Amino acid sequence: MWNENWHEQTQPEIAALYPAGIHGAIAGGLVELLGDEVEVGTATLDDAEHGLTEEVLARTDVLLWWGHMKHDEVSDEVVARVQRHVLGGMGLIVLHSGHYSKIFKALMGTTCGLSWRNEGEREIVWTIDPTHPIAVGVEQPFVIEAQEMYGEHFDVPPPDELVFASWFAGGELFRSGMTFRRGRGKVFYFSPGDQEYPVYFHPQVRRVLANAVRWAVPVPGERAAREAPNQPRTYA
Amino acid sequence: MWNENWHEQTQPEIAALYPAGIHGAIAGGLVELLGDEVEVGTATLDDAEHGLTEEVLARTDVLLWWGHMKHDEVSDEVVARVQRHVLGGMGLIVLHSGHYSKIFKALMGTTCGLSWRNEGEREIVWTIDPTHPIAVGVEQPFVIEAQEMYGEHFDVPPPDELVFASWFAGGELFRSGMTFRRGRGKVFYFSPGDQEYPVYFHPQVRRVLANAVRWAVPVPGERAAREAPNQPRTYA
Amino acid sequence: MWNENWHEQTQPEIAALYPAGIHGAIAGGLVELLGDEVEVGTATLDDAEHGLTEEVLARTDVLLWWGHMKHDEVSDEVVARVQRHVLGGMGLIVLHSGHYSKIFKALMGTTCGLSWRNEGEREIVWTIDPTHPIAVGVEQPFVIEAQEMYGEHFDVPPPDELVFASWFAGGELFRSGMTFRRGRGKVFYFSPGDQEYPVYFHPQVRRVLANAVRWAVPVPGERAAREAPNQPRTYA
Amino acid sequence: MWNENWHEQTQPEIAALYPAGIHGAIAGGLVELLGDEVEVGTATLDDAEHGLTEEVLARTDVLLWWGHMKHDEVSDEVVARVQRHVLGGMGLIVLHSGHYSKIFKALMGTTCGLSWRNEGEREIVWTIDPTHPIAVGVEQPFVIEAQEMYGEHFDVPPPDELVFASWFAGGELFRSGMTFRRGRGKVFYFSPGDQEYPVYFHPQVRRVLANAVRWAVPVPGERAAREAPNQPRTYA
Repeated sequence: MWNENWHEQTQPEIAALYPAGIHGAIAGGLVELLGDEVEVGTATLDDAEHGLTEEVLARTDVLLWWGHMKHDEVSDEVVARVQRHVLGGMGLIVLHSGHYSKIFKALMGTTCGLSWRNEGEREIVWTIDPTHPIAVGVEQPFVIEAQEMYGEHFDVPPPDELVFASWFAGGELFRSGMTFRRGRGKVFYFSPGDQEYPVYFHPQVRRVLANAVRWAVPVPGERAAREAPNQPRTYA
Repeated sequence: MWNENWHEQTQPEIAALYPAGIHGAIAGGLVELLGDEVEVGTATLDDAEHGLTEEVLARTDVLLWWGHMKHDEVSDEVVARVQRHVLGGMGLIVLHSGHYSKIFKALMGTTCGLSWRNEGEREIVWTIDPTHPIAVGVEQPFVIEAQEMYGEHFDVPPPDELVFASWFAGGELFRSGMTFRRGRGKVFYFSPGDQEYPVYFHPQVRRVLANAVRWAVPVPGERAAREAPNQPRTYA
Repeated sequence: MWNENWHEQTQPEIAALYPAGIHGAIAGGLVELLGDEVEVGTATLDDAEHGLTEEVLARTDVLLWWGHMKHDEVSDEVVARVQRHVLGGMGLIVLHSGHYSKIFKALMGTTCGLSWRNEGEREIVWTIDPTHPIAVGVEQPFVIEAQEMYGEHFDVPPPDELVFASWFAGGELFRSGMTFRRGRGKVFYFSPGDQEYPVYFHPQVRRVLANAVRWAVPVPGERAAREAPNQPRTYA
Repeated sequence: MWNENWHEQTQPEIAALYPAGIHGAIAGGLVELLGDEVEVGTATLDDAEHGLTEEVLARTDVLLWWGHMKHDEVSDEVVARVQRHVLGGMGLIVLHSGHYSKIFKALMGTTCGLSWRNEGEREIVWTIDPTHPIAVGVEQPFVIEAQEMYGEHFDVPPPDELVFASWFAGGELFRSGMTFRRGRGKVFYFSPGDQEYPVYFHPQVRRVLANAVRWAVPVPGERAAREAPNQPRTYA
């Protein structure tokens, strides 16, 4: 679980909301729901190499990413390394304002822009694909009482699967849960969650993230990005 | 029509095959089939800013891209400019070895790797989506007598539409015509075509490229990539 | 333009809203926006063979379908005929309560169920795919002041393209504009529109329907559904 | 595992190839690879209600379907029952000539036509989506020495996922492994397999079918097809 961990260090009201950091809150939710099924570690922007060394990534099955104000301070080298690991099979779950992270933009190829408004309005999250493993056990719909609004058009490629969409009190809607296969890796973007609201303690949000971690685990086999090999005539 | 135009200047046998350059051959095909419907210009690696200035791109509806040996010599600044224009609405048609161009990799987010073998083998191109505008008037199937083989797995995101797939004599197959929406722009990748074979004079290949140009023209409206505007409460 | 035309004959308040019938209102909108580009005919349930003879369908490029109370009275033979024509290339635009028509269910293979509530609430229609021809010139978003609510989960297959999604005042959202290729035909489902509200006079709704007709026109070529021919060895 | 079981009873050479029937061969492969993970039953056309009573379907997680000559003898009532169970969550795996079964056509909404040729030619099966659970542990590619050819265009809706594609010696190719979500159920079509060739004993084919059974198991929750409920205002 990676977090830029900047709001928590500089804004007391956010530190009060997330005393163990956003990363701590999310990691806690995963442990609560998945127990021994997972081993959860955390890393932050201030760690050496942002805590995302080659060695750490090599033993990571699924990386969760939360960032907001400090996207530009994430080193390009680390971003390229994470991208290589995703293409080689590591799962990636991008959260909320992570839509504007370097790693998400690199994997999508688009601006990843959207409309937004921070007025603490009601968000209602609807399941669009009830057959999807990420939607298992999630209430249809679930309500987040106060949230930042994210609205369409969200400039990402058409997703492989649209799992959730969100309604906002002010009239907007948003594709709030989407999957994207990239290389051998699975990517899930999930928008609910903000530093100013206790969204990562919401039981339904925790259910979604636990499901997403299970879903994003790499398929068995070699963890390597695709090369462009010369292929001698072999089969016919 | 952009071409790195390197083989043609350094390898006489390729210059003999494409006396007006690969760019000239493709431009000629577009004029032959589309006539006054299009105004075709060409640009190459050696041109100032590779011939892809802001001004040129601003009046380009659809950019075709051929490159092979000199991908790394395309400036990052020009690649970012082309990407911005695609996300703002400009169509992009990426040809053959352009799968490894910087612009295609930037838009896909993946390695864009594939398997290959250059033994001049038969390629048979099948239409998978007969309803697609790019397939209109294209023979089902059409045969290219001698070609470089490109084989799966081709590491691109799942396409929006799979229009063509190719059979190769040596036992491989390949998703040879695929569409990808990125931002407000439409991207088409088409693999048939190589500097060592006269593929760009093949009437069916010319039909495909003319259809693709028609398809990739921007929808009417502003040509601008998505930003992330703050959206005051307006509608409800 | 096909309409069951039952509400208009039995409910004076609906006849007052749609004096030329829903079919007349929609046909009028197409003529208003497309002019000489189209020749618009209408047919209703009470016509012989519901007005959908083999001869009529053979010269129809795009069929629009509105039905509500009388789905079961549409003959299975006519439904099979329409389905055959769609698979052969005829475009089909299914409107609002047509989600439960025999022809739509036959083409989707699913229940086509959804949630609904008729309380005249506000619907806001957002464009999800700004590159789509059906969205050209459509305001982002547009507001329908009073509408029946249709909500998720909408039990259709994952669409080829999600063009529009709708927000409802009561908290629901809905994938309100979706495309589906079936055989050689293009299908568009569009939910705004109800007999109790003057939705088919809304300028943005008229824009969408005109765009959809243009989009659904068959590609040139033979109008025939796929058979399963024996294919002698020919190409390799 | 459902089989029409007609070739085996009327053609000694096929009975010799599949002494326990095609259903027996496939069931044997599932038991071999999945062991105690599954409980496998078989049913055939000649059984009462074709062996597919309400009670049998209600306790079936995944149904495999093989038919060829007797599609028309499957009762419409049983087909409707199977379709209802798929839409309610039961997985369905349709095999080879089952492309023309009533149940597959009902779920697809298209003709499901294709080209074919029975000359015992080589088929090479390539994995197109290496991240898919159905492709786990499957050799890239695998070769079936003698097979009936199935070729494009295959008239099915665009699949959710293209997992496998096949090359045939005579020059054709085919989308041989595709997934389709329908209602709450998952559908997988897999073309390799014919009564005249021992394909269902091929270890890679057995691997694919075992993976597909795992993949198609319903997500936890109610097994019921979608209705169209009136939804009182509840959430906003």
